[in-house]
Amino acid sequence: MADGRFEMSEKTTAELEKLRGLIDGVDQELLKLLRQRLDLVAQVGAVKHNAGLPIYAPQREAAMLAKRRVEAESLGVSPQLIEDVLRRLMRESYLNEKDVGFKQVNPDINKVVIIGGRGQLGTLFAQMLTLSGYPVHLLDKDDWDNADAILAGAGLVLVTVPIAITCELIRSRLQGLPKDCILADLTSIKSQPLQAMLETHCGPVVGLHPMFGPDVGSLAKQVVVVCHGRQSEAYAWLLEQIAIWGARLVEADAGKHDKAMQLVQAMRHFSSFVYGLNLCREQADLDSLLQFSSPIYRLELAMVGRLFAQSPELYADIIFAQQESLGAISDYLNNYAGALAMLKAGDRDGFVRQFREVAEWFGDFAPQFRSESRSMLQSVNDMKSH
Amino acid sequence: MADGRFEMSEKTTAELEKLRGLIDGVDQELLKLLRQRLDLVAQVGAVKHNAGLPIYAPQREAAMLAKRRVEAESLGVSPQLIEDVLRRLMRESYLNEKDVGFKQVNPDINKVVIIGGRGQLGTLFAQMLTLSGYPVHLLDKDDWDNADAILAGAGLVLVTVPIAITCELIRSRLQGLPKDCILADLTSIKSQPLQAMLETHCGPVVGLHPMFGPDVGSLAKQVVVVCHGRQSEAYAWLLEQIAIWGARLVEADAGKHDKAMQLVQAMRHFSSFVYGLNLCREQADLDSLLQFSSPIYRLELAMVGRLFAQSPELYADIIFAQQESLGAISDYLNNYAGALAMLKAGDRDGFVRQFREVAEWFGDFAPQFRSESRSMLQSVNDMKSH
Repeated sequence: MADGRFEMSEKTTAELEKLRGLIDGVDQELLKLLRQRLDLVAQVGAVKHNAGLPIYAPQREAAMLAKRRVEAESLGVSPQLIEDVLRRLMRESYLNEKDVGFKQVNPDINKVVIIGGRGQLGTLFAQMLTLSGYPVHLLDKDDWDNADAILAGAGLVLVTVPIAITCELIRSRLQGLPKDCILADLTSIKSQPLQAMLETHCGPVVGLHPMFGPDVGSLAKQVVVVCHGRQSEAYAWLLEQIAIWGARLVEADAGKHDKAMQLVQAMRHFSSFVYGLNLCREQADLDSLLQFSSPIYRLELAMVGRLFAQSPELYADIIFAQQESLGAISDYLNNYAGALAMLKAGDRDGFVRQFREVAEWFGDFAPQFRSESRSMLQSVNDMKSH
Repeated sequence: MADGRFEMSEKTTAELEKLRGLIDGVDQELLKLLRQRLDLVAQVGAVKHNAGLPIYAPQREAAMLAKRRVEAESLGVSPQLIEDVLRRLMRESYLNEKDVGFKQVNPDINKVVIIGGRGQLGTLFAQMLTLSGYPVHLLDKDDWDNADAILAGAGLVLVTVPIAITCELIRSRLQGLPKDCILADLTSIKSQPLQAMLETHCGPVVGLHPMFGPDVGSLAKQVVVVCHGRQSEAYAWLLEQIAIWGARLVEADAGKHDKAMQLVQAMRHFSSFVYGLNLCREQADLDSLLQFSSPIYRLELAMVGRLFAQSPELYADIIFAQQESLGAISDYLNNYAGALAMLKAGDRDGFVRQFREVAEWFGDFAPQFRSESRSMLQSVNDMKSH
């Protein structure tokens, strides 16, 4: 409904104009305060940078927020409001950290080589390592003629090439690395690449899986999974470096990680793919779907649409990477077919019964997810502009 | 990684303490400004309330944000930061509107009866109507003995009972309404209830579908679908009232609405149900899934988990409401089975080809969804506390 449909008296107009002038003034002050706060946090960042402290300190952050919530309440401001505003400000500060650079944990490393360094994730890691003072060299698919020269004297070799060629590349190309060189990979499956690295290289080996897309602005709070290979004391500096970038390191067994990824990645990406395919085959009218859609559906549609703005090869790689994913993907089909049969039979009671079973299995996670998703949906609604 | 793993010198500690003291001071100022701004916007609300203007004015909001973005840039503050902070503040102000109440558009209405008024959505509408000065009476399942007395003299009857009983209830219980009484419903399907209302009542009739859950704090920016029935001039005040609460009214043909809902609601809820069922059957370890999960997966898991924190009957109602939904749900199964066969055959090229087709079909929506989802995922990441 357009604003113009409602008529205003002169008095109302004048009153509103006056109040809006006052709000303008408050917003000027607000902007200045935001600028001041960002500057102060940047100074904290500089001190931390010099001292080699990580930019993301979860306990301190939680303590600060708890304090602010109490202060807010005493002023009659909702605690959640100040927390949300400060969290948004912290994101901005994390992004700005990149301008300062990061402490170099290990200044003795003469050369870091990123294989696949012109890919998206390779570019991000090259940037972070460079910002931390490491001499980074890229080895991409057209550089193999110079591979010996590029790899000579490397203290860290980071492999980030498509999953489909990772193991073969490691086995065929990386036998001659310096003995004390760290060999690491960023592949989204871990067992096979780790095995290939351990068999090919006799020095320090570690498998890493950054659990985020290359379009994150900052590594703050992002998760990096670590699967230990060999000589962990030799690559401890690398993990510390990643922690300084703000990421949270989660150690995991490679097999357990891969099994989780069958559910987390392969199945989820596959079902989003099928959902998009389905919309396309039904020739759904996206415009009118969006018009009708509630925040939750808009969010889900955005998650599906997001997939198709990215590289098909990337998703093919992830989905085809593990033969075992087929099991998870097939199981879903069977469960779907079973539930559909129940639906076709009009078995409402059966549906309610199964629903209750699943709810019980979710346990305390269900209400937790409900309250989490509520905040997410409110953010999505905030973003609406018409 | 705990904060304690990194050691600090005394100098560093002192410097950090000093800066944190300054940040504390800025945050005090920030809290005061937020309080001031909320108060000023509340005064705007009071003026609007007296003048009967809607609380959500999209064009003015957009103009104000555009101005602030320019001002932010001149101060070296990111325009997106100030926009996000102000949007969050606006949400808070919309919530606070409830304390002021809303202008009553039609003071001539002596009685509003909400059938199913003790349900979640009924409670929300009862609250909004009461805040707008209407005398609201509830007629819930135990009140049918007094139905005649409750319905007598009603100017608006709002039906919000489970879908499965909506049409029958209208036909069997609402034949004797006063001739000029407005009959409206809030059911999430529209064709059949609208038909039932038109056949039962000879006065004004309108079908409404609030596209949001009962846990929204405010109706600002939320969508309410309107399917016109009969004598629209008689219920124009009701639509204006809903607009004053901040909602956006979207007019739609009942049949077209129901078809969209087969995709938007039934199919989506059903596949979330199956996804939860699947996790339960696979005995997935939710704790470790969450530990490994990237923001996008956490968000998707929260959307699934959210379902199971709610009433099974509600979802059964929605899924079983339209026989035609079975078509959409079956089509998805077939597309899934087809894609799985391709996967089992190892047909990577086929996958990439189909992916490209769907991406082309999404067209400009795909990059739009990508950038939208990026903001959403950043918000999700902001919320992380460990």
